[in-house]
Amino acid sequence: MRVRKKPGAYEALVEDEKYFVEVPEAHKGSWKALFGNDNPIHAEFGGGKGKFAIGMAVQYPMINFIMVDAVTEVALKAVERANELDLPNLKIIKIDLQFAENYFAEGELERIYLNFSDPWPKKRHYKRRLTYREFLKVYEKLLIKGGWIHFKTDNRSLFEFSLNEFAEIDCIMRHISLDLHANPTPDNVMTEYEEKFSAMGYPIFRVEVSFRV
Amino acid sequence: MRVRKKPGAYEALVEDEKYFVEVPEAHKGSWKALFGNDNPIHAEFGGGKGKFAIGMAVQYPMINFIMVDAVTEVALKAVERANELDLPNLKIIKIDLQFAENYFAEGELERIYLNFSDPWPKKRHYKRRLTYREFLKVYEKLLIKGGWIHFKTDNRSLFEFSLNEFAEIDCIMRHISLDLHANPTPDNVMTEYEEKFSAMGYPIFRVEVSFRV
Repeated sequence: MRVRKKPGAYEALVEDEKYFVEVPEAHKGSWKALFGNDNPIHAEFGGGKGKFAIGMAVQYPMINFIMVDAVTEVALKAVERANELDLPNLKIIKIDLQFAENYFAEGELERIYLNFSDPWPKKRHYKRRLTYREFLKVYEKLLIKGGWIHFKTDNRSLFEFSLNEFAEIDCIMRHISLDLHANPTPDNVMTEYEEKFSAMGYPIFRVEVSFRV
Repeated sequence: MRVRKKPGAYEALVEDEKYFVEVPEAHKGSWKALFGNDNPIHAEFGGGKGKFAIGMAVQYPMINFIMVDAVTEVALKAVERANELDLPNLKIIKIDLQFAENYFAEGELERIYLNFSDPWPKKRHYKRRLTYREFLKVYEKLLIKGGWIHFKTDNRSLFEFSLNEFAEIDCIMRHISLDLHANPTPDNVMTEYEEKFSAMGYPIFRVEVSFRV
């Protein structure tokens, strides 16, 4: 997401003590201790302004959610929104997912959500797409055995690229949808993008992905 | 394909000696002998009026093509079209693919094409779709080890169903395309449907599928 730089955004972010975790490295391997319980942890990688992660945290109080975004201004927006509610099962961090292994231990996550990830449409940028095989190999490490990635996007090209990446590294796929809202499920929590693009009549693509044990 | 019944169509079909094979069971396990060479055999299952199979046979003289359709009137159309050309590497048969194993021996086919297969849109008819898992298990037998199915369709729901079937029985997938004509390949031979629907701006979906050895 392209956003306007906002002076003082980072300062505002670290000022928050309820949701924002300033030094996430410190919690690698001990996120459950930070949440103060033994519930499973789901992470959203590229969470944007937080609508999805917040909605999920409301809907599933017995799951801990960590929303990740690389952009200060965006993470701040999520933090501000979360502050309208009281969600002990939500944390928000600002990291670059290239270095995700510095922040999560092996098998620490039970699920990863990739929602409307940046499509990086230029061919030469394919390695930046969050479903590029090198990212997938990292996700495999971070997920518990048998854990799933839930990926959705409105971007046909990104979805096509992603299916081929999943196939290429021999992932397991299930619940492949080429038009998610044609068969709506009541528990689908929508992101900002999803609301916007599905209202415009564009299909939403979705798949769940796992790794061979 | 729904077609008008045409009296005398079957009689006209069996009259053809150049392309139509009236008793295909007789050639199970010995199709290469019928073609009179040892070239690989590719079959198109549900070939319709033959544009694809004929185009392929023209383009690839070193491959033997068997076009299959269950509908007499449609197979006749393909036979009539083929008769405008001289193609020693093409045969046309009329069979019900439920019984494909009666007509081809194990490993006799090097490739299977499924082009714009009947989507059978009603949910209760899903077992009739040519990418239903029970059909796939038959194709696995008929294909040589490492052989591929090339599947294309304009029907989003059929493609979605098919991807899930492929994933469900743990097929290998590659070259997944959600908009084939966005990146046209010069050697793509179009079917009637493909010409029509891609001209109308609808995306064409395509994937190659194989089985684990």
